[in-house]
Amino acid sequence: MTIQQAIEKLNTLESTQKAYYHAMSVLSLDGATAAPKRSALGRGKTLGVLSGVTYQLMVNDETREVLTTILDQRNQVDPLIARRAELLKEDLDDMTRIPMDEYVAFQTLTSDADAVWHEAKEKSDYAMFAPYLEKIIDFNRRFAGYKNADKPAYDVLLDDYEKGASMATLDNFFGLLREKLTPVILEVAKRPAPRTDFLRQVFPVHQQRIFSDKVMAMMGMDRDCCAIAETEHPFTDGFNKWDVRITTNYHENELASSLYSVIHEGGHALYELGTADEMQFTCLASGSTMGIHESQSRFYENLIGRSLPFCKALLPVAKEIFPTQLSGVTPEMLYAAVNEAKPSLIRTEADELTYAHHVMIRYEMEKLMMAGDAKVNDLPALWNKMYKDYLGVTVPNDREGILQDVHWAGGSIGYFPSYALGSAYGVQMLSAMEKDIDVWGIAEKGDLRPITAWLGEKIHRHGRFLKPNQLLEQAMGAPFDPNYYVDYLVKKFSALYDL
Amino acid sequence: MTIQQAIEKLNTLESTQKAYYHAMSVLSLDGATAAPKRSALGRGKTLGVLSGVTYQLMVNDETREVLTTILDQRNQVDPLIARRAELLKEDLDDMTRIPMDEYVAFQTLTSDADAVWHEAKEKSDYAMFAPYLEKIIDFNRRFAGYKNADKPAYDVLLDDYEKGASMATLDNFFGLLREKLTPVILEVAKRPAPRTDFLRQVFPVHQQRIFSDKVMAMMGMDRDCCAIAETEHPFTDGFNKWDVRITTNYHENELASSLYSVIHEGGHALYELGTADEMQFTCLASGSTMGIHESQSRFYENLIGRSLPFCKALLPVAKEIFPTQLSGVTPEMLYAAVNEAKPSLIRTEADELTYAHHVMIRYEMEKLMMAGDAKVNDLPALWNKMYKDYLGVTVPNDREGILQDVHWAGGSIGYFPSYALGSAYGVQMLSAMEKDIDVWGIAEKGDLRPITAWLGEKIHRHGRFLKPNQLLEQAMGAPFDPNYYVDYLVKKFSALYDL
Repeated sequence: MTIQQAIEKLNTLESTQKAYYHAMSVLSLDGATAAPKRSALGRGKTLGVLSGVTYQLMVNDETREVLTTILDQRNQVDPLIARRAELLKEDLDDMTRIPMDEYVAFQTLTSDADAVWHEAKEKSDYAMFAPYLEKIIDFNRRFAGYKNADKPAYDVLLDDYEKGASMATLDNFFGLLREKLTPVILEVAKRPAPRTDFLRQVFPVHQQRIFSDKVMAMMGMDRDCCAIAETEHPFTDGFNKWDVRITTNYHENELASSLYSVIHEGGHALYELGTADEMQFTCLASGSTMGIHESQSRFYENLIGRSLPFCKALLPVAKEIFPTQLSGVTPEMLYAAVNEAKPSLIRTEADELTYAHHVMIRYEMEKLMMAGDAKVNDLPALWNKMYKDYLGVTVPNDREGILQDVHWAGGSIGYFPSYALGSAYGVQMLSAMEKDIDVWGIAEKGDLRPITAWLGEKIHRHGRFLKPNQLLEQAMGAPFDPNYYVDYLVKKFSALYDL
Repeated sequence: MTIQQAIEKLNTLESTQKAYYHAMSVLSLDGATAAPKRSALGRGKTLGVLSGVTYQLMVNDETREVLTTILDQRNQVDPLIARRAELLKEDLDDMTRIPMDEYVAFQTLTSDADAVWHEAKEKSDYAMFAPYLEKIIDFNRRFAGYKNADKPAYDVLLDDYEKGASMATLDNFFGLLREKLTPVILEVAKRPAPRTDFLRQVFPVHQQRIFSDKVMAMMGMDRDCCAIAETEHPFTDGFNKWDVRITTNYHENELASSLYSVIHEGGHALYELGTADEMQFTCLASGSTMGIHESQSRFYENLIGRSLPFCKALLPVAKEIFPTQLSGVTPEMLYAAVNEAKPSLIRTEADELTYAHHVMIRYEMEKLMMAGDAKVNDLPALWNKMYKDYLGVTVPNDREGILQDVHWAGGSIGYFPSYALGSAYGVQMLSAMEKDIDVWGIAEKGDLRPITAWLGEKIHRHGRFLKPNQLLEQAMGAPFDPNYYVDYLVKKFSALYDL
């Protein structure tokens, strides 16, 4: 095979692959946002067929020859092509280790599990979901073993979601957070709570939908390339830079929940929308790691979205839609309310200060699950105990406890730490950004496009071209240092709560 | 190949095919209801790849052997399997005549054309759409030629959508309608118009959405298997009997438009929802012909939905949601208003009496288009002239003229006559139904399940198992006779307008 033939075959392979991924993602999106309840059977069958084909597209001798031909001559080809071959080769090596029938069975299982989880959560019925979770843990353990039988399964999974992460590095990271943040959490609990009642009135859903559109406009999102839909557990998916979707979940009696979910998912979307044109329909047109993706979503959600300057821009927009409900509210009141810090039940709605403690609990649980040190039937009790120990809260039911998140149902174990890592990366990027542009002047104007332009230049446009560490370092201006994150939280919440 | 092997391979073929069709349909549904504007590029690429695979699945020596093996021994196998093989063999013969590159190019073209049509309609810009239409006509003419070069292309297409239909039979059918209905239309135009002002007030979209749910409940649709979405031109799609989707289009200043679109699409949905369990994930789980599908949608929309008894059931439901707007309205006023008959511009919103004349115009246009007797650039002028001649109305712009319908953009030429045929079939079914059950007592109660049960028994459950004529005759109790339709319309509108 000549290098030219290999490049042509690579292009065909990737455009075909992308077509299948696109179809599968739209099926999943539809399943989570629009499909009727009993659609799961048909969707599972279809996803099973399509994922079988994606497996066969990758795992064959020709694909291997295409990739090694390019990689053997990587210095003679366009660096984008070399990087594509490199990433696909990593995928191929991973997939080759998994027998096809197991790969397909896992896709079908997670499709079913997702549907069952929705119902189990609604009914707060862990027993319904448990057999699926058990199988998902088994699959993950087996897949990790295929990949690297010499390392603990959980280390293999962690490294999958966040290159370089391991139980050793994360024990340190979470150790620092626990040590430095727990005293602040305890102090804050003793102070008077800010007023939040004005965010807990009736905000009709059809008006919240209008509010979402306004917030997406403030973020500078091109709506011709980005749509919003509604689901149980909000997520973002990007099929290519001209077709990105965010989702949210409206609660009629709460304004902040969907608001910050839209800003969070909007941050993910801006990443996908900002990948370079020449990367589209290849494996480069995506985020680098899960943690780096989360660094973008939590950057917008918290660092900008929950800052006083942005609250000043946001309030008049909110008041136009909800004049009665928000009458008399000042930017400072809004700022204090959306930053109310207190130990709570739901990770996605946790404040910035206690957030990492929620992630820590999943991390500790996943460690036990993957090591086989906890039985699936014992997990809810374990969960409830950890919430008591780490956050001092009593979990009233599994709906608001172990069933709250979709990740395990979707087959992902080892993803959660990325949320905390991403939050920490983001703070360090902010400190680099502040040296280049007037972040807070921009936030107060309520037009975030210059902030997105900075992130676009440092992060978004690179897609998966750079190695994660390289990408992070150029955006943060230095190697990762979690003290930025800890210092930022201590300072912000000490000021908010007069510590 | 043994018969047993052939049956196993048939099962695999159909479940694989269904997976691809499901994926492609969800992509299209998403494109029409949820996707952002610029998503068309990616969707076109993906549909191109998937349709290429569906072509290859069918057109190969093994599939041919599977089908002929079963058909050669059709008396020894389950009649459902024999019928599946028969229908697939028809598809295979059709597809074999079309070169694969043309087949794929046509899928990509119609995906692009659909997106362009949406924009062209919005901007009332026919010139944008014309080059796509030209190509679609060419493809249709070429495909018809591949199928049967001895017949006029339009006859081939008509027979595709409605087995047995041809220009000869349709000239007669439309001739009868024109002869008998035109005098009534002219007479009605001289009478005073009923009050319709109360249907043209502000009906907020978020309340109309609630109304749609109530109407779907009256129709007895199982919402766990049937969802509703919003689009420009409403349609229904059924992936299997547990996953059916209807769509509608809300107009804030009009109540009846979306209402009757929901009932119409609901009729299509009930057909798909009612196909037999054992037919699912095979080619039998679908409607028989386009005309028979339309007979169901227009049955619910007009024969039931626009009857006085159903108006009696509907009004209190509507008044609960819109008490102010509908205060003082009686069932008789509603009945008169939703049956206002007058020549108008938009087919989908036309009254029952003038509806067939809209279809006639498309039929005459398509005859000219397919015969090559009209240039694509001349079509808008021709359209406008026919609306003047047939209905006496002046078309103010292409948006409300030639660009109003999606069908041509979707690649379908020859579909329109099915709408008029379906309406006529439905009336003859109603006359058979009236002998078996108390149709009007049921309609007045507002729980249409017994009506659906009758249609389910006669039509829905059979899917594509019976030949269209056989299916129609058992539901109508006699061969098709368009005089039922004409007599029904003359009687209904003579009474309404005191002729």
